[in-house]
Amino acid sequence: MEMNIALLPGDGIGPEVIAQAVKVVKAVGKKFGHTINFEEGVVGATAIDQTGDPYPDATHEVCLRADAVLFGAIGDPKYDNDPKAKVRPEQGLLAMRKKLGLFANVRPTFTFPSLVHKSPLKLERVEGVDFVFFRELTGGVYFGEPRGRNEQGTKAFDTNVYTKEEISRLARMGFEAAQKRRKILTCVDKANVLATSRLWRETVQELAPEYPDVKVEYEFVDAVAMRLIQWPKAYDVLITENLFGDILTDEASVISGSMGLMPSASVGTENKLFEPIHGSYPQAAGKDIANPLATVLSAAMMFEYAFDMKEEAQAISDVVNKSLAEGIVTEDIAEGGKAYKTSEVGDWLAANI
Amino acid sequence: MEMNIALLPGDGIGPEVIAQAVKVVKAVGKKFGHTINFEEGVVGATAIDQTGDPYPDATHEVCLRADAVLFGAIGDPKYDNDPKAKVRPEQGLLAMRKKLGLFANVRPTFTFPSLVHKSPLKLERVEGVDFVFFRELTGGVYFGEPRGRNEQGTKAFDTNVYTKEEISRLARMGFEAAQKRRKILTCVDKANVLATSRLWRETVQELAPEYPDVKVEYEFVDAVAMRLIQWPKAYDVLITENLFGDILTDEASVISGSMGLMPSASVGTENKLFEPIHGSYPQAAGKDIANPLATVLSAAMMFEYAFDMKEEAQAISDVVNKSLAEGIVTEDIAEGGKAYKTSEVGDWLAANI
Ligand SMILES: CC(C)[C@H](C(=O)O)[C@@H](O)C(=O)O
Ligand SMILES: CC(C)[C@H](C(=O)O)[C@@H](O)C(=O)O
Repeated sequence: MEMNIALLPGDGIGPEVIAQAVKVVKAVGKKFGHTINFEEGVVGATAIDQTGDPYPDATHEVCLRADAVLFGAIGDPKYDNDPKAKVRPEQGLLAMRKKLGLFANVRPTFTFPSLVHKSPLKLERVEGVDFVFFRELTGGVYFGEPRGRNEQGTKAFDTNVYTKEEISRLARMGFEAAQKRRKILTCVDKANVLATSRLWRETVQELAPEYPDVKVEYEFVDAVAMRLIQWPKAYDVLITENLFGDILTDEASVISGSMGLMPSASVGTENKLFEPIHGSYPQAAGKDIANPLATVLSAAMMFEYAFDMKEEAQAISDVVNKSLAEGIVTEDIAEGGKAYKTSEVGDWLAANI
Repeated sequence: MEMNIALLPGDGIGPEVIAQAVKVVKAVGKKFGHTINFEEGVVGATAIDQTGDPYPDATHEVCLRADAVLFGAIGDPKYDNDPKAKVRPEQGLLAMRKKLGLFANVRPTFTFPSLVHKSPLKLERVEGVDFVFFRELTGGVYFGEPRGRNEQGTKAFDTNVYTKEEISRLARMGFEAAQKRRKILTCVDKANVLATSRLWRETVQELAPEYPDVKVEYEFVDAVAMRLIQWPKAYDVLITENLFGDILTDEASVISGSMGLMPSASVGTENKLFEPIHGSYPQAAGKDIANPLATVLSAAMMFEYAFDMKEEAQAISDVVNKSLAEGIVTEDIAEGGKAYKTSEVGDWLAANI
């Protein structure tokens, strides 16, 4: 098969980790007889520096032409503490999500036997954790209008908005995923305070009868923030709005002890994007020390979800597990063993596919 | 001294835990020669059942007449899964906060040596944790207008609003607390997305020069959700908006292993309210098994913060530590030892003041 993949390395360690994923994807193409074409686009702070726009039209065109997008990370500290900056790298991320219609962010949390001891949680709480968040990604307070300041600049406001349609298309993905898993769906909201949350709960309640095999639970976001730490094994599939998802998926990401390995997918009706959940980690940029495994596993998700190629995805998971077992890993997880460079890990993975 | 204390037991286990705090407060009054008058008010589901209003005017009058309010808990599951319910117990809580002007919710997190092993976190991560959240409590998306639905009911919206003044009065409390502690203030926001958060960050940046001895850090809410689990000891004082505070203080409450013991204060310019951070725990209501220590420790906070009586507060902390040391505790923390009833713990504490 012929596949067109857009590469958006972005900022910080993005280019380095994407480069390793490309090596692995090429090796998979060779092994399974696929022709894989890559086309690159700039995004984030890098794109601002080059074009003034964090998600330039040219990059959007690259994404539209592609069958799937592999994305690194964006963000640069020089923009973080300047509340008056006009253009921010993150606007590129948000524009990309919106323009590509990536309404569902799929974030699995699971453990690796060889890394679970690195979890901040006690072993018995976290061993065997296996849940997945479906975070709504193109609505809510991230995009709602009006937003801004009053004239004097002494008052600021944001608007959280959701339509039934936005909620139900995301919720359906959650229900369907639950049907293929342990059949528990948790709707996370703040229905005791927010009008938007009440619409979420109402919409999910209306859909539930269509999925009679799925047990639906409703929990407040503050309760979930606690239970994710106390009893993370209780969860199977969680659905939630954009802002709650931002907070909770990050909280969830640290409990497995292998944040540097967690992949994610952002999908819509037309487009699909795959990215590591970690950030641009500017302190490590250019040092060839970043852990590329989350990006490599995002490429595995890409084969499975964008191309329905389970064997190719499995080949990548297998080689990642092999690298962990043999200690061909970067310094963040080397634990006293030899620390390999980012590029060395990529070479090894590609050679062992 | 003569003190007037309003008692708002509320729902679920509220009345039982408040009853024990009252025993202890009376014992303190006797020991230190204070005249303490109590007046009760209804609130929450209990108030809806009796008056149709979750925070009736009569209760508000009771609070206004008092020097401090001791509050139990509110919430009843019969209201939770009905997104169309017109009156909710939580509205009483929100009305109470707003009408009493309780703009700052003060939530300390610390560990008890005898209970820290119950933390879901590994001991080395959590031992010695000691931070305090200042959550803004009368603004933000909890109260912003407009909020509601479109005519067809297919679209819902909420508004997050903050003024510079609301931010700075809360931030100043945080700065002042930091000056008396380890001198680190973390401003938690989502300034890379929200206009309100940018106003938070800007306001805090403007205030910082007035507190040159305090080191100010700015962190995104999603990052804090992670770091609270990874490195909770790094934090000293955290300030944040209402909704982020709701989520993060609940997350924080489980890391100490002693959620059932954590007190809180909600303070404004005129009024002060003290309450346990745990909820109404309806499953346990009426069984005389609920842990009263968080409410008793909230009474200690009351002596300190509402009446500036450090000795009285210390006497309560001391007797609570004694009860822990001697195992005079409820079943949730009895750990195989004898489990005492709620009322027995209260009697013992009052007798040992
Ligand atoms: C960078 C930021 C705008 C973004 C978000 O809040 O969505 C990030 O935290 C994420 O979760 O991808
Ligand atoms: C009951 C609810 C409205 C309330 C809140 O969200 O503030 C509660 O979670 C709290 O934190 O006191």
